[in-house]
Amino acid sequence: MNYIKIFAPATVANVSCGFDAMGFAVEKMGDEMTFTKTAEKGVKITEITGANTLTFDATKNAAGVVALAMLEKHPVDFGIEITMHKGFSPGSGLGSSAASSAGAAFGVNELLNKPFSQLEITKFSMLGEEAACGTPIVDNVSAAIYGGFVLVRNYEPLDIIKIPVPKKLRLVAIHPQIEIKTKDAREVLPENIPLKTAVTQWANVGGLVSGLHTNNYQLISDSLTDVIAEPARKHLIPHFDLVKSEAIKAGALGAGISGSGPTIFALCKGKKTAKKVEKAIQNAYADKNIDFTLFSSKINTEGIKILETK
Amino acid sequence: MNYIKIFAPATVANVSCGFDAMGFAVEKMGDEMTFTKTAEKGVKITEITGANTLTFDATKNAAGVVALAMLEKHPVDFGIEITMHKGFSPGSGLGSSAASSAGAAFGVNELLNKPFSQLEITKFSMLGEEAACGTPIVDNVSAAIYGGFVLVRNYEPLDIIKIPVPKKLRLVAIHPQIEIKTKDAREVLPENIPLKTAVTQWANVGGLVSGLHTNNYQLISDSLTDVIAEPARKHLIPHFDLVKSEAIKAGALGAGISGSGPTIFALCKGKKTAKKVEKAIQNAYADKNIDFTLFSSKINTEGIKILETK
Repeated sequence: MNYIKIFAPATVANVSCGFDAMGFAVEKMGDEMTFTKTAEKGVKITEITGANTLTFDATKNAAGVVALAMLEKHPVDFGIEITMHKGFSPGSGLGSSAASSAGAAFGVNELLNKPFSQLEITKFSMLGEEAACGTPIVDNVSAAIYGGFVLVRNYEPLDIIKIPVPKKLRLVAIHPQIEIKTKDAREVLPENIPLKTAVTQWANVGGLVSGLHTNNYQLISDSLTDVIAEPARKHLIPHFDLVKSEAIKAGALGAGISGSGPTIFALCKGKKTAKKVEKAIQNAYADKNIDFTLFSSKINTEGIKILETK
Repeated sequence: MNYIKIFAPATVANVSCGFDAMGFAVEKMGDEMTFTKTAEKGVKITEITGANTLTFDATKNAAGVVALAMLEKHPVDFGIEITMHKGFSPGSGLGSSAASSAGAAFGVNELLNKPFSQLEITKFSMLGEEAACGTPIVDNVSAAIYGGFVLVRNYEPLDIIKIPVPKKLRLVAIHPQIEIKTKDAREVLPENIPLKTAVTQWANVGGLVSGLHTNNYQLISDSLTDVIAEPARKHLIPHFDLVKSEAIKAGALGAGISGSGPTIFALCKGKKTAKKVEKAIQNAYADKNIDFTLFSSKINTEGIKILETK
């Protein structure tokens, strides 16, 4: 293989109660990336479309950082040229840098003839997240790589658990066109929380995981509660409460902040409800003088997809 | 029905990571209780064996409190006589008051011809826990009533989720003959915890729930980690670290404090391993000059059992 083109999905991290521990991948939205072997050694980023804030410097670009680290660990006698076509904006809270990082780790691994396991490419992806966001967060990258719902059970050693996705589950999300930096969204979080609040949160994590395992949409709905990050962060997102309550009124199982925002996600059972929820969110935001994009999608259960190889 | 005899199981609450949110019922150990209709109205406790610290005053005894509350809610033209035969000691950390409370709620409900749902009898049981321990804790009583593993997803409104029990799962436990009051064990807990620590805990709750759903013993083992209550409480239990490490060395999936202690529980895969673990724990405690009882049991999956009716 001299060339591979892949699709790296957008991802929703945290998923209400599962702060820093859960995430899922999105079916429709994501980046396309290509990886081409070159005679000249090293990593070159030759094209970036769909985002004008990303650097072409491979030692700083998330995808470049990942590719360089992989080549250092697994030296070969060729180089790699990367193109990135962003399907969604950085700073949206949908794992933009994670898609680039995970996509790079996956694509480079394929070109190298798969020397690394899924868990190892997840670890390489974390380097890209660290380069882009300052912390080696893994919930987005692991969701992009594994697909479906993931639980980051442990960081050291890294342990990613795949959780099943009930078939009728769909995502509706709105991305208000404001930017929230992950770093800023981290700063508003409390360093310490009451034990009692933590118990509420982990009981819901248990409920959400059980609901996903048993296709129990009511339990999923009941468990989509975040008593920690959402109360601290929601003021960063204009009209969050309104969007959430309108989504739930229209039938959503629950709604919350995607990653560190500003995207607000809602999970729904079935396409019909998803359409109603999409409409309700659109109506809620229509007169707010803030640009936004809306989208609706199934949950991606496969992770990164290969689109073409040569 | 004028008479019913039941078995109310001992229970292990918390289960390492699931502090105040998870519990399971024990197959072999528990209380026997009888409930007999009497012409005279009211609730009378006529016999208590196996524990000499419990009151016969129905307005203060956990079982009495529960029975009185149920009769108040559902008045009848007869009274109820209760006998309690404790199969394990109060203050062991195995849900002694929970067995009495849950057993009373179940038994009285049967005599009343089942006016109350499983969730409602769980709520009545909480009154007994409150009378006995000062707080209406629900993890033990719900495990006793529902059987198997339970997740207390929410308190208000109360939501109990039953989690499947992998077939080969077995319990080994040691009860050092010292008493720890639930109240004292609560006082050593931190009121606030670092968010980062909480994330570790809820990631493990997610892992434990997923492992139980999928018979993934390795995941169950990895997830049986408590970074919050155990570090704060283990000094109350003599030789806790030794028992835990010997149990794990002998093949236990994990070990921790049962409820608020002093009983130490270990979960094992299969009878053979359970025997090894039992032996290892026994050896660890043999020369410590502390009396102890050891037991080994399957997980109870049915909850409270009816032994006899007339």
